[in-house]
Amino acid sequence: MSKVKLKIVCVLYDDPVDGYPPKYARSDIPKITKYPGGQTTPSPDSIDFEPGELLGCTSGELGLRKFLEERGHTFVVTTDKDGSDSVFEKELADADVVISQPFWPAYLTAERIAKAPKLKLAITAGIGSDHVDLQAAIDNDITVTEVTYSNSISVSEHVVMMILALVRNYIPSYNWVIKGGWNIADCVSRSYDVEGMNVGTVAAGRIGLAVLRRLKPFDVKLHYFDIHRLPAEVEKELNLTFHDSVESMVKVCDVVTINAPLHPKTEHLFDEEMISKMKRGAYLVNTARGKICDRNAVAKALESGQLAGYAGDVWFPQPAPKDHPWRTMPNHGMTPHTSGTSLSAQARYAAGVREILECWFDEKPIRDEYLIVKGGKLAGTGAHSYSEGDATSGSEEAAKFKTGS
Amino acid sequence: MSKVKLKIVCVLYDDPVDGYPPKYARSDIPKITKYPGGQTTPSPDSIDFEPGELLGCTSGELGLRKFLEERGHTFVVTTDKDGSDSVFEKELADADVVISQPFWPAYLTAERIAKAPKLKLAITAGIGSDHVDLQAAIDNDITVTEVTYSNSISVSEHVVMMILALVRNYIPSYNWVIKGGWNIADCVSRSYDVEGMNVGTVAAGRIGLAVLRRLKPFDVKLHYFDIHRLPAEVEKELNLTFHDSVESMVKVCDVVTINAPLHPKTEHLFDEEMISKMKRGAYLVNTARGKICDRNAVAKALESGQLAGYAGDVWFPQPAPKDHPWRTMPNHGMTPHTSGTSLSAQARYAAGVREILECWFDEKPIRDEYLIVKGGKLAGTGAHSYSEGDATSGSEEAAKFKTGS
Repeated sequence: MSKVKLKIVCVLYDDPVDGYPPKYARSDIPKITKYPGGQTTPSPDSIDFEPGELLGCTSGELGLRKFLEERGHTFVVTTDKDGSDSVFEKELADADVVISQPFWPAYLTAERIAKAPKLKLAITAGIGSDHVDLQAAIDNDITVTEVTYSNSISVSEHVVMMILALVRNYIPSYNWVIKGGWNIADCVSRSYDVEGMNVGTVAAGRIGLAVLRRLKPFDVKLHYFDIHRLPAEVEKELNLTFHDSVESMVKVCDVVTINAPLHPKTEHLFDEEMISKMKRGAYLVNTARGKICDRNAVAKALESGQLAGYAGDVWFPQPAPKDHPWRTMPNHGMTPHTSGTSLSAQARYAAGVREILECWFDEKPIRDEYLIVKGGKLAGTGAHSYSEGDATSGSEEAAKFKTGS
Repeated sequence: MSKVKLKIVCVLYDDPVDGYPPKYARSDIPKITKYPGGQTTPSPDSIDFEPGELLGCTSGELGLRKFLEERGHTFVVTTDKDGSDSVFEKELADADVVISQPFWPAYLTAERIAKAPKLKLAITAGIGSDHVDLQAAIDNDITVTEVTYSNSISVSEHVVMMILALVRNYIPSYNWVIKGGWNIADCVSRSYDVEGMNVGTVAAGRIGLAVLRRLKPFDVKLHYFDIHRLPAEVEKELNLTFHDSVESMVKVCDVVTINAPLHPKTEHLFDEEMISKMKRGAYLVNTARGKICDRNAVAKALESGQLAGYAGDVWFPQPAPKDHPWRTMPNHGMTPHTSGTSLSAQARYAAGVREILECWFDEKPIRDEYLIVKGGKLAGTGAHSYSEGDATSGSEEAAKFKTGS
C-alpha cells in the first residue's frame, strides 16, 4: 500500500438516460490479448470489472474505486468539466492525478494547469491527448500518458463502416423504411459501390494502417500521406500509393479518411482551400479530431455538392452544442464521439488506466508506448505523433454549452 | 435487324420523388471489367447510357428504349405489377419477353405463366429469380436468365456495412446527433467491436465468399455452411471453419449472415426454432431473400433480446407494406431492397440485360453463367443454386399493397 495519499480527479461522460443494462445483453466479449505488431493489451495486476460492462460513464468509474480506496487515495468522479465554476476546475486545486477521456474531454489548458500546483500526472483514458496543452505540461513537468492502441482497432472499424455507409447511402435508405416508404430510386440515386474507388488516408499510423488493411479486399485503390513513410513491404502488400503531400493525395481520391492526431500542424488542415482541391463528389471521414476540419468549410462543401458526404465522430468543442452545424448539414453520417469507447474498447482502456496507476503508485516505469510527455519533454508515443505547442485554444467555447447532452 | 417483332414488358421501380439527379453529382464511377475468378462484366455490342446514371427506375428504362425501338420491337415499361388488373398482368397476354428486378419483383407465378402463351424469355435484371415459379417455367419451356455476378460485390459490401453498423450501434448513435444530444453512454451501452467475434455465412457462393474475404482483415473467426464445400486452399487462406449444418454454425456465431438463394429448401430456414439455437445477443444479417426468415420470429427475437440486431434489405412481399413488422421492430437496420441496385450495379445489370437481348434476337447463345432454366430444365447457374419447385407462394399478398411506396 502506497504511503502517499493522492487525490485522483476523473472526468467521465454522463450515465445513460435510457437505462442500463439494455434489455438484451451479450454474455461475453471476445478476449483480445495482443494488438497487430505484437504489443500486448493492458496488463494490470488485477481488475475489478467484467469486460463488456459499461465503464466509461460516471457510475462505471472505469472500475477503479475499490482499487483506489483500498490504497487510501481520494477518488473524485465528475461529469462537470467546463467553466471556472465546474467541479473539475475546483477539484484541480489539490489534484495529484487527472484522468479524462477524449469523448468527454476535460480541457487542461495552460490557465488550468497554472491553478493545479500539485498536478503531476494526466492520464487519457483512450488515445489522443490534444485536450491537454502539451507545452504547458512540458513547462510544468507533468507526465502525460494515454492508453496507446487500446481503441485504435475500434476506430478503424468505425471508419470502414462510415465509408461504406456514405458511399452506399445507408442512413437515408434506412430512413425511407422508417417513413413507411419503398422509394428505391430515392435511396439509390446517390448510392455507389466502394469497389474500384480511390481511397486515401491522411496518416498511416495504427489507425490509418488498420483502415488500409481492412479496405484491401474491397478491391479499392489505396493511397496514403504520412510524414513517416511505411516500410516498402507494407506498401507492396497493400499496393499503396504514397503521396508526399496531402494535396497530391486528395486530388485523386474518391474517399479521404483522416487518421492523424491533432496538433498545431494539423489544426484546420481541411479548410475551404484543401476541400476545393478534392474531387467533386468525394467523401470525407474524420474520426481523428474535429478541429482538423474547418467546421463551416465542411458544411458549405456539403451544401454545394463539392463533398458528397461527411462522417466521423469528432467535433469541436465536445460535447457539441445543439446548434453545431454538423448536426444539420446535408448528407452527413455523424455520431457523437463514440468510436473509441465501444464496450470492447472500454475494457482495454480501463485496464490500461489501472496499469498506469499501479506503476505510478509503486514507482515502476510506465510503458514507453503510453508516454506522451515525461521529464519536461515529448516522450514515447508523443515524440512520434505530437508536436510541441498547444491545440486547446477555443476550448472555453465548451463552457457555454454545459448542458449540451 | 431482327425480322421477328417482339413485345418486351419491363417492370421497374418508381422514379425518385426527391428529384433526379441529386444536387451533387459524381463525375464518374470506377470501371470494373472483371469479377473475382475472371468472369468478365457484361459485354453487349454497345450501350446507350452513361455508367453511373439512374437506370433501374421507370424513366431510366434500363437504357434499352433506343436499342429496342430501332430493331422494331415494342417496349412497355411499367411499375404496376401486382393484382389481376395491373398493367403487368394485362400486358402478359401477348408478351414475348419479360424483364423484372428483384427489388420490385413482378411475381411470375404459375397462374400468370398460364395467361402468357407467347412468353419465351424471362430476364432478371439483377440476381435471384425466385419471383419466377421455376417449375412452371420448366413445364412451359420458358428460358429464365439473370445477370449473374452483376451485383454480388455490391451486396457483399452492404453485408459488411450492416454487420459493422449493428455491432457498433451506428444508427441509434447517429440519431442522438440528430436529436441534439451527446448521450455517449446511451450510444455505446450496446456498441462492440467486431474484432475477435465469430462470424458465419449461410452459403459461400459469390456473395458469401466475397463477404468472408472482406471480413478477413477484421481479425474475426470465420465460419461457413454450404452444400458445396469450398476448395481446401480457400478454407486455409481465410482460416474458415466449415459446418455441415446450419444449426452447428449458428450455435457458435456472434454474427450470422445469410447469402443463399431462396428456394423451397431455404424458405423459412430461420424460424423460431433456428433462431433459438443462436447465441443469445447474436446479430443476423439477411440480404438474400426475406422469406428465408420467418417474419414474426425475427421480430419476437429482437423484442426478447435473443437477437441483438437484425439488418438486411430483403422483405416479403416487396414492396413491404407500411405495417410490415420489420419497419418498427427494435434494433433493426433495414433498408428497402437496394443493396444490389447501387448505381454501380445498375450499370452492370443494364448492360447484362442488353447482352442477353442481343443474343436472343440474333439467336446467339446466351452465356451459360446467365442461365437458370433452359430447354425445360435447370441449367447453368440454376443447376448450382436453385432447386426445382416454387417459392412464389404468398406473392398475391403484394397485390393488397399496390400503393406501398
